[in-house]
Amino acid sequence: MTRKQLIQLIKEKKSYLCIGLDTDVSKLPKHLQSHPDAIFEFNKAIIDATKDYCVGYKINTAFYESQGLKGWEAMEKTVQYIPDTHFKIADAKRGDIGNTSSQYAKAFFEVMPFDAVTVAPYMGEDSVRPFLEYKDKWTIVLGLTSNAGSDDFQQLSFAHGITEKRLYETVLEKVATWGTTSNLMFVIGATRACDFVHIRSFVPDHFLLVPGIGAQGGSLKDVSKFGLTKDYGLLVNASRAIIFAGGGEDFAEKAKFAAAGYQSEMATYF
Amino acid sequence: MTRKQLIQLIKEKKSYLCIGLDTDVSKLPKHLQSHPDAIFEFNKAIIDATKDYCVGYKINTAFYESQGLKGWEAMEKTVQYIPDTHFKIADAKRGDIGNTSSQYAKAFFEVMPFDAVTVAPYMGEDSVRPFLEYKDKWTIVLGLTSNAGSDDFQQLSFAHGITEKRLYETVLEKVATWGTTSNLMFVIGATRACDFVHIRSFVPDHFLLVPGIGAQGGSLKDVSKFGLTKDYGLLVNASRAIIFAGGGEDFAEKAKFAAAGYQSEMATYF
Repeated sequence: MTRKQLIQLIKEKKSYLCIGLDTDVSKLPKHLQSHPDAIFEFNKAIIDATKDYCVGYKINTAFYESQGLKGWEAMEKTVQYIPDTHFKIADAKRGDIGNTSSQYAKAFFEVMPFDAVTVAPYMGEDSVRPFLEYKDKWTIVLGLTSNAGSDDFQQLSFAHGITEKRLYETVLEKVATWGTTSNLMFVIGATRACDFVHIRSFVPDHFLLVPGIGAQGGSLKDVSKFGLTKDYGLLVNASRAIIFAGGGEDFAEKAKFAAAGYQSEMATYF
Repeated sequence: MTRKQLIQLIKEKKSYLCIGLDTDVSKLPKHLQSHPDAIFEFNKAIIDATKDYCVGYKINTAFYESQGLKGWEAMEKTVQYIPDTHFKIADAKRGDIGNTSSQYAKAFFEVMPFDAVTVAPYMGEDSVRPFLEYKDKWTIVLGLTSNAGSDDFQQLSFAHGITEKRLYETVLEKVATWGTTSNLMFVIGATRACDFVHIRSFVPDHFLLVPGIGAQGGSLKDVSKFGLTKDYGLLVNASRAIIFAGGGEDFAEKAKFAAAGYQSEMATYF
């Protein structure tokens, strides 16, 4: 999906909502737990119920890998099932030396039809570049994450000439030079909405993938107020708060209401 | 596998060699390429031929994921096939917020019988801790990697009180406090053998996983001279230089000679 298409999609739907398919089998509704293809059945129902309210889905690979071969199969089936009109993110946090990152890029961009994959920056440029080589695909690099551990390294201050710079600021600045606003996004944790103005000074035009709305406690209002640009520039993700909004047989209906709630709030920020 | 068992294994075999199963299908011998289960057949032959010379195998998950469902299946079969006497590493470079890292830990430590998994540190303590909770399992955190991109962030200097510290030094120091020398190792790129003395000042007793011997150009002699401790403290990995030592029908025999070569050099450093 191109940047132009993504912007158009957001404009038409008045939504920059991404739904995270963190499909934890232990949290599935009881009536589905004995289903031979429970993860995919659940995802299918969630996608059918919510697709009008979101512009993308984010598949968290960990929840599929933890189910072994059947889980990997459910991931492949799910990404195939997501309509082509939606932006498909593999939240995989991969990253390795060049020839290995190329294999990951192949897995998510060729074998599976993802539009984007999340990548960890620690190993530097040659670990990120193989993902950027795919036309109309996106690399979403971890910038500032929303968890407590983001203080451990991301917030450390570096000497930078006569000034100081935090690690995540250096990551944003440096990684931005490796790609363009049409193939590169950043993960920015939403629980620090006060940082958004500051972050926009480093990456004024890039799309930011913002997890941490809902169960992780971020405020959609703050994120939207400080993060939106003239081209929108945000994909705000909610996972548990939507897909596990209900725990019974009406789980898809409950997910639909939750997604519709986010979308209608988003519409007010357009 | 416990630290005591690992040390005993190295002592008995006079080897701290780990063989990397970076099984790139495009590099398989011609006669295997049409085999319906080519990756596993190749790995099986490599393991049979080399197991006397190494103490462990490292499966690079990217090369399996790039083959889709069949690749994941080949990974599961391969790790099951590696003898229990050997240390089994998933070189997966995972790491995410706590509840997600728990799912990755489950995938590699419960669903598959790996002894260790490599983890990226960028997201901090709560992204690493779920892996450390498994008894007799190991978390191998990226410290200083061997690729060009390691200069981008790992080598950046931080203000640290009145002194300065590089990011990878801070990672070694801080991560070391999260676990013990019995459940935590670090990845240290071998192409900078001159850094080993310095690195040992931060992590004197931890096992270090050293990739980059062979095809990536590191010197086994330097790594051994500066990296070995009284408890050995090293796992030195070679991938392509062993598994693709030959490209014909005698590939396993060629791999055996390559592995035996590394082992006999290692024996001289005991």
